[in-house]
Amino acid sequence: MKIPSSSISRISLYYRALLSLKDTSVISSQELADLTECNAAQVRKDLTYFGQFGRPGKGYDTETLKLELKKILGIDRDWDVVLVGVGNLGSALLAYKGFKSQGFNIKYAFDNNIKKIGKTKQGIKIRSTRELKSIIRSRHIDMAILAVSQESAQTVVDNLVTSGIKAILNFAPVTLKVPSGVELLNIDLSMELERLTYFLRSNI
Amino acid sequence: MKIPSSSISRISLYYRALLSLKDTSVISSQELADLTECNAAQVRKDLTYFGQFGRPGKGYDTETLKLELKKILGIDRDWDVVLVGVGNLGSALLAYKGFKSQGFNIKYAFDNNIKKIGKTKQGIKIRSTRELKSIIRSRHIDMAILAVSQESAQTVVDNLVTSGIKAILNFAPVTLKVPSGVELLNIDLSMELERLTYFLRSNI
Repeated sequence: MKIPSSSISRISLYYRALLSLKDTSVISSQELADLTECNAAQVRKDLTYFGQFGRPGKGYDTETLKLELKKILGIDRDWDVVLVGVGNLGSALLAYKGFKSQGFNIKYAFDNNIKKIGKTKQGIKIRSTRELKSIIRSRHIDMAILAVSQESAQTVVDNLVTSGIKAILNFAPVTLKVPSGVELLNIDLSMELERLTYFLRSNI
Repeated sequence: MKIPSSSISRISLYYRALLSLKDTSVISSQELADLTECNAAQVRKDLTYFGQFGRPGKGYDTETLKLELKKILGIDRDWDVVLVGVGNLGSALLAYKGFKSQGFNIKYAFDNNIKKIGKTKQGIKIRSTRELKSIIRSRHIDMAILAVSQESAQTVVDNLVTSGIKAILNFAPVTLKVPSGVELLNIDLSMELERLTYFLRSNI
């Protein structure tokens, strides 16, 4: 069964809502919906994709649900990540505190700029992209973050895929191709801004 | 009527799908669904929130729909944006090509670091945050992008709000408060990575 990606995003939201709760041992789908600005039927439907966690009329045990959601999201373990492209955006991502706190460790960083190679940023040595394949293979790394220019993005993706990377978070505003079995997620920042202009248009 | 934010995000997706079409004068909800990995009923429901655009059994006129979606999203005009925080992330956002191509112009950039103030990046002069209020008010700017540290984020938000900003895109991984009437959108990059670890967990 194909689970909609919007459900996965909401599972992340539910997980964060549960993390923010203190002294709450049981939570209803309605309460979880209120905390995340979803509706209760949607909460129940999203969770039902993955099993029967709550008891009808009783709600969900918060600690159990938190653990189950971590498992579903694959964050009950840490993940090593490679970063390709250490320009402004790559440097910002190396410094981003939200990754490490959620168990995402950028272990290796690559760039093809000879001036950057060999230097250290945020405690991470910048390596030549020529080392990409050997590092990814020997360290069995599955995830990559792509912060390169539009022009080189597809070449780097091809390189990552043949090296064995299975999941890529891409920031370049360009459409990229990956074979099936590899997941590519594009961060399109102008789409995010459109959620704001929608609000502005309807409210000012 | 409150329209779900997931519908707004899908409207952005539909709009991008329409942009990518060539020589297609009419499109069905099923075709639009296939292009965006949604389902046809969802496409029809999302569009119905905003009016009756298609003809039953005929589909949507692509050019008309494109214009209507631009209007809905508020991108049938350009928007001036201020950027606060010109560190690594802020610099990356100044250089991000996806903004300008969608009509988002970062017109003013602010920082409180004396070493940066007065310098120019990507053709934009970096100003002192002391000038924030006078610029936002005199230029009637509604949107701000926040790329400051977790520690100073709430102070800057308060400053933006009293200056008249109505919509904020925040990159600091911290929960911020805004009064009603101001829209705050948080980019949580670790949530995006969780969509990838979900995939990895279920596929490797």
